[in-house]
Amino acid sequence: MTDLIPHIPSLHDDALAQRLQARIDSKTKPLGSLGQLEALMQRLGLILGSETPLLKQPQLMVFAGDHGLAARGVSAFPPDVTWQMVENFLAGGAAVSVLARQHGLALTVVDAGVRHDFAPRPGLIQAKVAPGTADALEQPAMTADQCATALGAGRELLATQPGNVLILGEMGIGNTSSAALLLARLADLPIADCVGRGTGLDNAQLARKTEILGQVLARHPQARSPLEALQAFGGFEIAMMVGAVLQAALERRVILVDGFITSSAILVAARLQPAVLERCVFAHRSNEQAHRLMLEQLQAQPLLDLGLRLGEGSGAALAWPLLESACRILVEMASFASAGVSERQS
Amino acid sequence: MTDLIPHIPSLHDDALAQRLQARIDSKTKPLGSLGQLEALMQRLGLILGSETPLLKQPQLMVFAGDHGLAARGVSAFPPDVTWQMVENFLAGGAAVSVLARQHGLALTVVDAGVRHDFAPRPGLIQAKVAPGTADALEQPAMTADQCATALGAGRELLATQPGNVLILGEMGIGNTSSAALLLARLADLPIADCVGRGTGLDNAQLARKTEILGQVLARHPQARSPLEALQAFGGFEIAMMVGAVLQAALERRVILVDGFITSSAILVAARLQPAVLERCVFAHRSNEQAHRLMLEQLQAQPLLDLGLRLGEGSGAALAWPLLESACRILVEMASFASAGVSERQS
Repeated sequence: MTDLIPHIPSLHDDALAQRLQARIDSKTKPLGSLGQLEALMQRLGLILGSETPLLKQPQLMVFAGDHGLAARGVSAFPPDVTWQMVENFLAGGAAVSVLARQHGLALTVVDAGVRHDFAPRPGLIQAKVAPGTADALEQPAMTADQCATALGAGRELLATQPGNVLILGEMGIGNTSSAALLLARLADLPIADCVGRGTGLDNAQLARKTEILGQVLARHPQARSPLEALQAFGGFEIAMMVGAVLQAALERRVILVDGFITSSAILVAARLQPAVLERCVFAHRSNEQAHRLMLEQLQAQPLLDLGLRLGEGSGAALAWPLLESACRILVEMASFASAGVSERQS
Repeated sequence: MTDLIPHIPSLHDDALAQRLQARIDSKTKPLGSLGQLEALMQRLGLILGSETPLLKQPQLMVFAGDHGLAARGVSAFPPDVTWQMVENFLAGGAAVSVLARQHGLALTVVDAGVRHDFAPRPGLIQAKVAPGTADALEQPAMTADQCATALGAGRELLATQPGNVLILGEMGIGNTSSAALLLARLADLPIADCVGRGTGLDNAQLARKTEILGQVLARHPQARSPLEALQAFGGFEIAMMVGAVLQAALERRVILVDGFITSSAILVAARLQPAVLERCVFAHRSNEQAHRLMLEQLQAQPLLDLGLRLGEGSGAALAWPLLESACRILVEMASFASAGVSERQS
């Protein structure tokens, strides 16, 4: 499987970073006064290798998959909601559909492993590895072959997408469980700290989810590497995102990360190739409690903190205009010299 | 002057609030999963009196004025930067110009009291009360007549603007001093807690600013009502914003508030007519340290927290797409029933 993992080089470039900072500091504003947006300008400039980065044809890709573990009652919603929401995305009725329309983002749904047969149509990529993962309480969520297939498919389908921005979204009833398991294992954290209410569990259900996930971890003591953990805990949508993220990183695309689940794909990818993180922009801190721990693991400074916990890529779509703003300011804003504005008094 | 202050009625409407919540909860998403965006939907719906609010022709108005106190060295930039930045706004080169273009916001600069003669041109409203306020260390920043003129002009010019959204911006070297003075007096807080670095003072300059503002407060012990404080501490741009805000509130427009200075105008308006706050959306928590205290006074939950401290309305422009998103989700997003998605398991 390791031959599917490309080497991702560091983007470290002191000269470009300094030119970017000089450009930012020449703009008609007090030094540093655009705060976190200035760090975003630096990041986008370094990823795209330009002092005047341009974001082109952003692709919002929603990876969907079902989870064998969902039958254990780890979610507040029934598993059929995965395919029903895929239909909703394609019909334009979901939150992420509305937001993609607002911002002119191309929205593609990737069937990575939904337990449902979809009629082919525009906006849907059929890349089903299998109709749902296995129950991780009984066996690894995926076979090694399935995991490799998902990674490879993620890399291949990303390579055919236009533009220089990948915006990550996901759908999969039960997938906060996979994300929690990946966090617990790869960051060596107690499972109770990694479990959250997902789509809305009450206290008793949360306790049950925690207990089940603890058993799943105990069932797979040997799954300690990023790829072994991914195979053991799933899901297909997360594995395919890992592949897409690695390919996007290799191609120096900007990767805009949504919430807890998409962050778990980044965690796996970054444990395989740390320089992936240099290509990432984290859209928001979600209300899923463990997202805070996940973001710490990824040394991420998210842009928004709106208490979102919807997934789908909705938080990433909400943050998208900030990326456009950062680039436009770098490109369009006047300098003190060009505008004839006095600089600060010494 | 009090005849310039309209009565602003409360928007309290339990029936509409319940219909809005039912509509939000019918959407295909877990209950509450859009977090702060759901509170925003409630607010926009209540302001515009509709379960399907539409934001129309948003007007970004940048109120500019000069400050007599600026000659005391309370800012890192020379006073000429006020008029130079007005030229920059009009030429399209400032941060707020770039952001307004990005989001299709009509940008108008209002000369409330800049010490400069501007050639008339599109996008500039000439409403100069006087070329800069008086030095508040020596006398009130404005006469009572000037304060009334500014309030009245703000109301009048707002009344002629199209649309149902007022986005507030400002420019005025020295105006963090006025905002700090208004906060200190109207909230009865120590001046040291209300003073910040503005456009970038160092520690010694900050200490000097604090000392000067303490002297200004001591110079005007009688200026305790909102209008007396406004007259004593200025500036013309803040007073004209107070008038515009009152008129916008009267007309049930959405008022999108930027940073520390525009918030000080809201503070004055809200102390005059508390129901003004029901019409406000707070764009961001700025890096000017006292903005946190100001927002507490206004019981505000800002949308962004990006460490901005630029003013101009730049933070409001950055937050603008979130308001559009909130409305589009209310209008366009499918319900569980319309999309055929299963609801949560009992």
